[in-house]
Amino acid sequence: MITDLRALEPQQLPAFTKDLVDQVCARVRDKIPHLESSVAVAELTVALHYVLNTPEDVLIWDVGHQGYIHKALTGRMEALANMRTPGGISGFLKREESPFDFFGAGHASTSVSALTGVCLADRKVGRERNRVAVIGDGSMTGGQSFEALNHLGSLGHDALVILNDNDGSIDPTMGALHDHGSYQSYVESLGWSYAYLGEGNDVVQLVGHLKNQLQKSGPRVLHIRTKRPDLSAPKSYKPGTTFQWWAAEAIRDILTRHKDIQVLSPAMFAGSGFGPLREDFGDQFIDTGINEAHTVTTAAGIAAAGGRPWVHIYSTFLQRAYDQIVHDVVLQGLPVVFLVDRAGLVGADGPTHHGVFDQGLLMDLPGVRVWNPRNGEVLRAMLQEVAKNPPAGPLFIRYPKARTEGEQRGVFAPYEWLSKSDSKVLWVSTGAISELMKKDENHLHLAQVWPFFNDFGSILSNFEEIHVFEESTGLGGLGGGIAALVEDMVPRPKYVLHKLPSTFIEHGPRLQLLKDHGFDPFL
Amino acid sequence: MITDLRALEPQQLPAFTKDLVDQVCARVRDKIPHLESSVAVAELTVALHYVLNTPEDVLIWDVGHQGYIHKALTGRMEALANMRTPGGISGFLKREESPFDFFGAGHASTSVSALTGVCLADRKVGRERNRVAVIGDGSMTGGQSFEALNHLGSLGHDALVILNDNDGSIDPTMGALHDHGSYQSYVESLGWSYAYLGEGNDVVQLVGHLKNQLQKSGPRVLHIRTKRPDLSAPKSYKPGTTFQWWAAEAIRDILTRHKDIQVLSPAMFAGSGFGPLREDFGDQFIDTGINEAHTVTTAAGIAAAGGRPWVHIYSTFLQRAYDQIVHDVVLQGLPVVFLVDRAGLVGADGPTHHGVFDQGLLMDLPGVRVWNPRNGEVLRAMLQEVAKNPPAGPLFIRYPKARTEGEQRGVFAPYEWLSKSDSKVLWVSTGAISELMKKDENHLHLAQVWPFFNDFGSILSNFEEIHVFEESTGLGGLGGGIAALVEDMVPRPKYVLHKLPSTFIEHGPRLQLLKDHGFDPFL
Repeated sequence: MITDLRALEPQQLPAFTKDLVDQVCARVRDKIPHLESSVAVAELTVALHYVLNTPEDVLIWDVGHQGYIHKALTGRMEALANMRTPGGISGFLKREESPFDFFGAGHASTSVSALTGVCLADRKVGRERNRVAVIGDGSMTGGQSFEALNHLGSLGHDALVILNDNDGSIDPTMGALHDHGSYQSYVESLGWSYAYLGEGNDVVQLVGHLKNQLQKSGPRVLHIRTKRPDLSAPKSYKPGTTFQWWAAEAIRDILTRHKDIQVLSPAMFAGSGFGPLREDFGDQFIDTGINEAHTVTTAAGIAAAGGRPWVHIYSTFLQRAYDQIVHDVVLQGLPVVFLVDRAGLVGADGPTHHGVFDQGLLMDLPGVRVWNPRNGEVLRAMLQEVAKNPPAGPLFIRYPKARTEGEQRGVFAPYEWLSKSDSKVLWVSTGAISELMKKDENHLHLAQVWPFFNDFGSILSNFEEIHVFEESTGLGGLGGGIAALVEDMVPRPKYVLHKLPSTFIEHGPRLQLLKDHGFDPFL
Repeated sequence: MITDLRALEPQQLPAFTKDLVDQVCARVRDKIPHLESSVAVAELTVALHYVLNTPEDVLIWDVGHQGYIHKALTGRMEALANMRTPGGISGFLKREESPFDFFGAGHASTSVSALTGVCLADRKVGRERNRVAVIGDGSMTGGQSFEALNHLGSLGHDALVILNDNDGSIDPTMGALHDHGSYQSYVESLGWSYAYLGEGNDVVQLVGHLKNQLQKSGPRVLHIRTKRPDLSAPKSYKPGTTFQWWAAEAIRDILTRHKDIQVLSPAMFAGSGFGPLREDFGDQFIDTGINEAHTVTTAAGIAAAGGRPWVHIYSTFLQRAYDQIVHDVVLQGLPVVFLVDRAGLVGADGPTHHGVFDQGLLMDLPGVRVWNPRNGEVLRAMLQEVAKNPPAGPLFIRYPKARTEGEQRGVFAPYEWLSKSDSKVLWVSTGAISELMKKDENHLHLAQVWPFFNDFGSILSNFEEIHVFEESTGLGGLGGGIAALVEDMVPRPKYVLHKLPSTFIEHGPRLQLLKDHGFDPFL
């Protein structure tokens, strides 16, 4: 298909592009999220592959949502139909999938850094080729994009960055750079030449501008305006069926009654069921843009000034603020409440987005508390509890991207017995997987997974065999904590660990992935 | 003292400042690192506390090295004499020490985020006060400072940022922003007003400019030029006595013989013994500036383009690139070699800088290898090994800020017996603490701490009791890995864990801290 493309005359490109978009939409419309991000760059994608000699020339995308048309054009049109399903291709850019996916991309703001690496490697061996990165205006708020522009801008290498500006990522773009439209002075201050094309959906004009840019040398930014079509319905959840719905309901009530609480989210409102709250709670509900590190330290600043900050963040993006959590929040003992969304397996987004590391990370930090609700109503109870009784230090409330159906019940308690039997076997679990388990064992649920409650050790010592269930990977976490606790018991109970393996788990439905990775006998 | 200061006339401030600096230098000169960073802002410090009503007004410093004069002026002059020693005050800003230390600071680029938090909290309750952050030009290369400027610049709050520009942090400032001196267009593009004072060491002029700025509204940057005095001798290590010396020696040899290797370091060359190499290996030895996230993804880009990237980074700053390690390097299986310096307790820098989390973090990541040399010569052997045989995937070589004296020996082997006895007790250790232990036990050293070597389990099964020694904190790591390994053995050996507690450990000499935190009986 890419060979066909390169044989065309420029005036044939609009029809080619339209046909390409139609084919892609026929395969994936209504099946995948954020299709509009890709359709918005259909013309750019065609123009880039038309003027570049990919995959010899390097083309790096920032975040995968821009990549569906690129995938179709580079040999994966038919594969689109099974994208994000088990065995199918990924929704993101992925090196193993195609040589045209030069660099993987699932998290934002990495593309210019990767481009810097290519420049350094190419210069080292004297390799000449075109090197291009495409970054959206939403990703430009991430500090890593600044770090990369500032560094690469000082090196003098030949590199082209396309700034694809359409006022948003998943959430609207925030920040002064966007508000003031001051991209030109910004990138020029960082050593880049600047050019602008308002008609970023005009493939013929794009080809002209790109050819022109590729003849120049040094670090160059081409800023284009594109239009995102309105393809996806706004995300909504059937009342009561997801953790996200319960969180949003609770937050609405809490913000109404506790005017001192401020919720920050680094551009993760839309996917979280919080969208409608944004307008109703202007000064309490703050979308900071894609800037996790800044958001966490800002929350620490609010707490230091005596306010009540809550941070809403996905587990996988919390990884970007790990040092700020350690250095600015936990070390200072500041009372920041974290709503860690997407904790656990996330399903179709796959390995770039699974929230399987944070539980181990967080439990290793001195003085933190970590809570995992087993269903939506317990999540609501936890949030209400924290609203009423502000914590004295850092608290992390982790909940998955998962359905939470059936009988909802429960108030917040640090632990509870879900079932009891006469056996000497104990099951200990935490979080949403607990509701998927059989009901005929001694089953203790830890809503507060860390620190352990005082009598936990004496309960464990009553059993001969302890099974630990944890939707997380790694050597520590709940399993590691229990291992340390039982080591000195006489007799020492045996423990059996059921947690995710130390591999990157592919995309697929969450329940399927759980079954495939060790939780089958108990589900 | 601060009351005395505020009673002065402006023309008395130069003498006051000179006296203050003299007093500080008399107490700490030659005893502490980076004194010049503080002396460079002596006039600024005096001027700020003169015009501000601290601690009611908020003053936030970026990184602690600017804070010694501030500490002296705010009640800690006598305490300076014992700064960075056990029981003495910290070398960094610390909330517990003084209400004048509004926000803790040990890592760079956090101040404007904290300032954002104060603005949001104050606006919430309608509180009026002055809010000021001081950030050095070196910290401006960190992406978080951009995130904060871009966000706070869009909010319209009254806030003043002092950009203290003296061409460097510990290493010289890198990047286009500094090279082009384009701070004005940069901060204006982010919604900030801009003013400049070239005479940033003139306390009377500073007072005038600060008063002027404080009468204005909205987000404002005052850019001042200051001069760093030449106070500290360049860091050098006695040959053969530190891990840093051995690393630098090895790297010199390796870069000479392997022209394809490129070493990146985000502004951590000076403290690492690498300073002299910078000039000799221009295109192989790249200081990227303070931008850990960018540096790691750049290395991934080099690897994706077929190059051979090595990243030199302190353990505590690796925390800032955790997501880039996961998402850009490890998930993509790219062969990036990390030299993780300052892994373990760092001594006088204290809790903001101890490298006690990364071992647990790294061992939780699928497919990585982690190596810990027990002395400098083994470190050299490891580096030579990796230079000769490029790894197929991510590799982390961790070494402490520690002396490595006495008999050096050893080539690289994944594990080795350091001593043997007839008992049924086994000691397993990793890294530099191993050399501090007695020599009369069965003592197995894991140079490759992860993954475990194939026969490790069968060796463990020969013993009744296994003591695990690990200079790290957390529930996983080596201890967690061994716990999982021995669980199913029959009979199951008992294991006893000797690792750092889950608390933030204060500053003090490394050996003292080890003794105080659980390693005493074996040292």
